[in-house]
Amino acid sequence: MSSSFLADKREIEFLLFEYLQMEDLLQQPYFANHTKESLLEMLSSCLTFCDKIIGPLNKPGDKIGCLHDKQTKKVTTPKGMKEAYLQFVQNGFLTLSDEENYGGLEAPETISVCFMELFSAANQSFAIYPGLTKSAMHVIGKFGEEWMKKVCIPNISSGKWTGTMCLTEPSVGSAVGDLKTSAKKQADGSFLIKGIKQWISGGEHDLSENIIHLVLARVEGAPMGMDGVSLFLVPKIRIDKHSGQLKEANDVHCISLEEKLGIHANATCLMSFGDGDQCEGFLIGKENQGISYMFLMMNEERIMVGLQGIGIASAAFLNAEKYAKERVQGMDISLKKDSQDAKRVCIVEHPDVRRMLLRQRAIVEGGRTLSYFAAKLQDLSRHAASEEIKKKSHTTLELLTPVVKAWCTDMGFEVVVLAMQTYGGYGYTKDYPVEQYLRDLKIASIYEGTNGIQALDFLGRKVFMQQGQVFQGWITEQRQKAQQFKEQGLFSEEWSIVEYYLEELQNAVNHVQRLFAQKKQKEAVLNASSFLMAFGHVIIGSLILEQGVLACEKQKDTSISSLDKKFYRNKIITARFFIHQILPEAKSYLAKVFTEDVSALDFDFS
Amino acid sequence: MSSSFLADKREIEFLLFEYLQMEDLLQQPYFANHTKESLLEMLSSCLTFCDKIIGPLNKPGDKIGCLHDKQTKKVTTPKGMKEAYLQFVQNGFLTLSDEENYGGLEAPETISVCFMELFSAANQSFAIYPGLTKSAMHVIGKFGEEWMKKVCIPNISSGKWTGTMCLTEPSVGSAVGDLKTSAKKQADGSFLIKGIKQWISGGEHDLSENIIHLVLARVEGAPMGMDGVSLFLVPKIRIDKHSGQLKEANDVHCISLEEKLGIHANATCLMSFGDGDQCEGFLIGKENQGISYMFLMMNEERIMVGLQGIGIASAAFLNAEKYAKERVQGMDISLKKDSQDAKRVCIVEHPDVRRMLLRQRAIVEGGRTLSYFAAKLQDLSRHAASEEIKKKSHTTLELLTPVVKAWCTDMGFEVVVLAMQTYGGYGYTKDYPVEQYLRDLKIASIYEGTNGIQALDFLGRKVFMQQGQVFQGWITEQRQKAQQFKEQGLFSEEWSIVEYYLEELQNAVNHVQRLFAQKKQKEAVLNASSFLMAFGHVIIGSLILEQGVLACEKQKDTSISSLDKKFYRNKIITARFFIHQILPEAKSYLAKVFTEDVSALDFDFS
Repeated sequence: MSSSFLADKREIEFLLFEYLQMEDLLQQPYFANHTKESLLEMLSSCLTFCDKIIGPLNKPGDKIGCLHDKQTKKVTTPKGMKEAYLQFVQNGFLTLSDEENYGGLEAPETISVCFMELFSAANQSFAIYPGLTKSAMHVIGKFGEEWMKKVCIPNISSGKWTGTMCLTEPSVGSAVGDLKTSAKKQADGSFLIKGIKQWISGGEHDLSENIIHLVLARVEGAPMGMDGVSLFLVPKIRIDKHSGQLKEANDVHCISLEEKLGIHANATCLMSFGDGDQCEGFLIGKENQGISYMFLMMNEERIMVGLQGIGIASAAFLNAEKYAKERVQGMDISLKKDSQDAKRVCIVEHPDVRRMLLRQRAIVEGGRTLSYFAAKLQDLSRHAASEEIKKKSHTTLELLTPVVKAWCTDMGFEVVVLAMQTYGGYGYTKDYPVEQYLRDLKIASIYEGTNGIQALDFLGRKVFMQQGQVFQGWITEQRQKAQQFKEQGLFSEEWSIVEYYLEELQNAVNHVQRLFAQKKQKEAVLNASSFLMAFGHVIIGSLILEQGVLACEKQKDTSISSLDKKFYRNKIITARFFIHQILPEAKSYLAKVFTEDVSALDFDFS
Repeated sequence: MSSSFLADKREIEFLLFEYLQMEDLLQQPYFANHTKESLLEMLSSCLTFCDKIIGPLNKPGDKIGCLHDKQTKKVTTPKGMKEAYLQFVQNGFLTLSDEENYGGLEAPETISVCFMELFSAANQSFAIYPGLTKSAMHVIGKFGEEWMKKVCIPNISSGKWTGTMCLTEPSVGSAVGDLKTSAKKQADGSFLIKGIKQWISGGEHDLSENIIHLVLARVEGAPMGMDGVSLFLVPKIRIDKHSGQLKEANDVHCISLEEKLGIHANATCLMSFGDGDQCEGFLIGKENQGISYMFLMMNEERIMVGLQGIGIASAAFLNAEKYAKERVQGMDISLKKDSQDAKRVCIVEHPDVRRMLLRQRAIVEGGRTLSYFAAKLQDLSRHAASEEIKKKSHTTLELLTPVVKAWCTDMGFEVVVLAMQTYGGYGYTKDYPVEQYLRDLKIASIYEGTNGIQALDFLGRKVFMQQGQVFQGWITEQRQKAQQFKEQGLFSEEWSIVEYYLEELQNAVNHVQRLFAQKKQKEAVLNASSFLMAFGHVIIGSLILEQGVLACEKQKDTSISSLDKKFYRNKIITARFFIHQILPEAKSYLAKVFTEDVSALDFDFS
């Protein structure tokens, strides 16, 4: 079996070690086990795993999908998935950045996030299983009772058990506070859970002996809405709290699998809890605090989903680029009218193809930068030397999380569409991988909170948290950086453009704040999506231009290889392209925020 | 079987009879058989056919697809397609706008194009079969020998035979001039055809007794490139030139079917001609003129593909709108923080959902306007009272054709993506039709000349044809119109915006012209796609705002029904939305045309 997995290792190394300076981070005591060399070695092993193990499963898994047996209610994943999962765990990938008490390797989260991108690029259906499992483990580790930690964490971290996240219900969707699943306290302190949960990724499968479901439910008598939601640990097979031994099956089963556009090898389940009134669950943390616990999981997931967008987009782009460099078609446009005998060229020579490819590259590099940057903030929020840096990193991460999720998935989808267009007709066929990438990636704009909800979270909550200080602080920092580079005469024209948009972002926020003050909530959030996209364009512009400056310096070193010379030159070109060809789109996004037109509210949809 | 087909009949009627004033067109003698009433009656019968006959076949057809028998080399279409095709022809839909000598009803092309939109909305896989058949018939009718007309046209127009268009070859793609299929003249004047053609829609199927392939090939000894390409009529089953009787099978067969992202019920064939050196073909018209004949077909097809984009987008939008009006989730955002007991609302109440829906609507209405407008130009180019109008309509149509094709398909795809997002998670599942729409529509940006090629045709050829007079004339006309309405105080603010962009388009063309003059071909066309999109935004803005003006007048009539009142009010809102929320995107498109940044040419892809 062959794999269409491709990754740009040089680019990833640049980002991690030259731009984000992982080596500095490794100075923190937590990372004592790691060096640049050890991380690079792990990266190589990750790339091999992607290319040799899960990459080749991607296309057959898409074709076969998961099977649900109506009789036994069991789900079978495509051949090879189970073995791949075990190997994944054995390679240390599941708990890469976790503490030793999770069985973890204590590597930076930034590395873990980088690997997640690569897993998604190789096999998105596969990558979802460990992604959610890991988050479930973290919730248990942080909020669970001692016995839960003792019993679940070793079993999950060793790959014997997996985990899920059960929020959504059929008639409720994103309005999680309206959920109907109930929890009734029993004499022994456990709860009887009853309800239906929908779109549960990995709700039932054959990768592991047991599945630990984290289920949101309302304890009888609890308030309506978000404030009455509690979180429960509900095992697929009951467990002995002391020994951790598996007992009889719990009253949990998969009703059916969703038939979906893509990610066919990932089991998306409609789950029944307590159909026979025998579903045993255990409260995690305190009653009615479920939403806040789940948010820990959600925030991790949102960064991860952003990475899924970039990972698949990157694979699509690299495949399209490879194709464009091999496919001979047509002649050089500047000769076209002069000669019929002119040499036929590869399509990468055609201006429109080059434009599409560089746009794909710039979006992928930009989205990757933002995601890894966010992951590094996570590392700093946990392990930085000072409390001040920890705190600041944490709040900045909170600010950026919805942007990572929404920008990387929507723009990542655009990349896949452009990659398909690069292939021409072949892109639409199953002869090439891009049509699967398109189908697999689309879910990322929808799940873990639709991108519309991310935008509301961003503009309605994050931008104004702490009286807007986090946002202001971020903007100010970026402006200072721009100012500084301008003074040094490095990409002055481009930094001026960034500065202009930073100011415009600030103006847009002021405008929205006035609308909120006038109690015009609907008007204020009407173009939240556009604001989020504009913000993404601007901060990524700023981060990517900084890389251009860095590449410019690196290029001066006369001892570098010719490959590196080309690499840095191309980095500079990509940064310029982003500033001149992508960033200006922020203008039309912001125009929508500023406009007084509220036609969408006026329209009579009745 | 149920159908997810939806259409906005009132909107279509407005466009045809209030905005495009079909009744005036019907004054031309050619349309003597038709009245507004007869056209409305046909529209009703078309809607019924879509809803009852081909709509219900859409989902099952997608699931089953076409089957290719490796032994017999025959292709079987999904159940019901054959009967539907016959009924389609019997209803007069195939030759609706054709002359009587084609067995046609001599209705306006505008109506035919409107119906094509509806067929695509109901079942894109189905709609492709008659679409290409019709174009093949026209080529034969216009350029074929007498016996071809006599034999083929009655058989095609009665639904007994169908037609194809065979341009593409595996290693050649869009560079048609490089084709390798050969034609060797025989003593009797016929030719032996030999070659492989790829992506032949309807190349083999069971809808008809015979299939007439129009095949591009190079006669032995003809020049290389486009100038040596001839067009041949190649029947699947040989025909008696005199009686039209079917004889033995020709040496033509389907090697395999493409496995594709979508349009599964349309047979996309890899075709072999002359594998046994016995493929009989007949020259159409003159040798080496094949490309020009094929262009007649291509131009018809390009308008039709634009319509496919709008048709599917419209169905996706209307389904999403319906869903948003039924799906209860969350509460009114202006109450959110105040009350947990607040009434839950339909998602159409949420600002971001309204924004997405109105954007979908505005794009669909805009694209439909442009396409029908182009179709009316076709009518005028054939049947207008004066030669001057005929000529002007023809050249304007030539100018607009690539814009119809590319704008409507790319923007239509955006509509489908937004429709999916409106559904949230459900949109990603096969429970709702939108995931199929997304898959079926994507091909439209690729086939009949990728949208990149449309952009090159537009900026490289059409804009500058007749020394740029057609383009200039069009811009001038639009500016005069804007000026006039401004003077009348009708939507002055919005017309000023349109005027601004018309001027910017002119500036952009001047800029590109300078680049061409400096022999900077690559720089000139680097952002051709952006220019095409900007042009589309501006002209559609102008056409849709004109509809706003019209709706404003209509609204004044106090005798209209409350439904009509609402309709006109919404038309005005949609026009405003287009001008304030969509048109400004032209700014960022044009910025790319104006920029001196040519990073995409500088980048080292080696």
